[in-house]
Amino acid sequence: MRKLYHYPICPLSRQVRVYLKELDITFDLIKEEYWYRRPEFMSINLAGCVPVLVESFGLVIAGIYPITEYLYDKYPNFVFMDEDSEIKCEIRRLLNWFNDKFYNEVTKILIDEKVIRLLSRLGGPRTERLRTVKLNLAHHLKYLSSLLEKQDYVMAERITCADIAAACHLSVIDYFGEIYWDHWPVIRHWYAILKSRPSFRPLLQDQVAGFIPASGYADLDF
Amino acid sequence: MRKLYHYPICPLSRQVRVYLKELDITFDLIKEEYWYRRPEFMSINLAGCVPVLVESFGLVIAGIYPITEYLYDKYPNFVFMDEDSEIKCEIRRLLNWFNDKFYNEVTKILIDEKVIRLLSRLGGPRTERLRTVKLNLAHHLKYLSSLLEKQDYVMAERITCADIAAACHLSVIDYFGEIYWDHWPVIRHWYAILKSRPSFRPLLQDQVAGFIPASGYADLDF
Repeated sequence: MRKLYHYPICPLSRQVRVYLKELDITFDLIKEEYWYRRPEFMSINLAGCVPVLVESFGLVIAGIYPITEYLYDKYPNFVFMDEDSEIKCEIRRLLNWFNDKFYNEVTKILIDEKVIRLLSRLGGPRTERLRTVKLNLAHHLKYLSSLLEKQDYVMAERITCADIAAACHLSVIDYFGEIYWDHWPVIRHWYAILKSRPSFRPLLQDQVAGFIPASGYADLDF
Repeated sequence: MRKLYHYPICPLSRQVRVYLKELDITFDLIKEEYWYRRPEFMSINLAGCVPVLVESFGLVIAGIYPITEYLYDKYPNFVFMDEDSEIKCEIRRLLNWFNDKFYNEVTKILIDEKVIRLLSRLGGPRTERLRTVKLNLAHHLKYLSSLLEKQDYVMAERITCADIAAACHLSVIDYFGEIYWDHWPVIRHWYAILKSRPSFRPLLQDQVAGFIPASGYADLDF
């Protein structure tokens, strides 16, 4: 059986879960606390991070970028990319924006500070780091809002990888109650549509022991 | 005319220069000191980083990941990827390894500390950060060496994107004299082959004012 090594509140793992559900591909989920660098996991992915997809015939695909491109290459019904070369450039730019820039400036810091530090017994979140997150997040939400004012979805009038990436990051930030939805009506409207997709629902059922999600996190009406 | 916004010792920009030369595509090079966030440049790429390729018909392709995939999509003679889906997964994993992990753990810190801090008048490089670079670099070179002991190139018996990415990062580190080649004979042998490619030669002529490259940097016999 196909396996996906993931962490419930990892935004990159979440994207793969959405893609696989959308493609109606069955898989076993394996929760990996990647920061412990478990030897068996490191032997599968030396980079020590999730997501890692392992096909039933043994192929290991490590990382959100190779997995996204693999699914696009392999499944003709992967509709979140585009056949047009210019549109693909923009989808990939935005994938990079969310999975590199946004991730390193917001989501990764939040997870490191709020969860990993605690589970690794390094102490509570550092105020200065959380302040940086808040500041960066405001810039990013402003940008996302400006994109969604131009069209229904992040980069087109239809859903693409860019929407799934953005929504998965927001879902993690929202878990910690860090988004003041009243300030972002355009994003809220778009996110409600994403949330209502059947592929997205299982993510919102996930919880991390010791961390209760913010109210409204799993609700379609938030 | 096609334009490439780059910085001479940016390892990501260097990869695009090699690809374009290998494809025999003409382009104008525009040196961008990206950390100053020049408004005209920010309006082309809001992420504020290089490389950015601008086609003569106006298409903007921002970032090493979109550019690499664009060249692969568009040019049938882009031989550094592969038609086989499984091999592509491994090439992309290694691209991610070098352009994300290696970059953030080694090359980016080195450039930030040795060049950008000085040009921005923030002071000299911080000893502690340079120590981190040395430690991380040793781990990465060990890994690269282990790959090159198995076959002639990073992931196959032929040159792929993974080799060009790895060699461009090493070229920048070597500019600063941070590689003790005597310790890494397998890497040295492979790097000499990469260095001798005509597409690679122009990179080694580049200099950044105020920073003299280490001896042997541009030599094929080093």
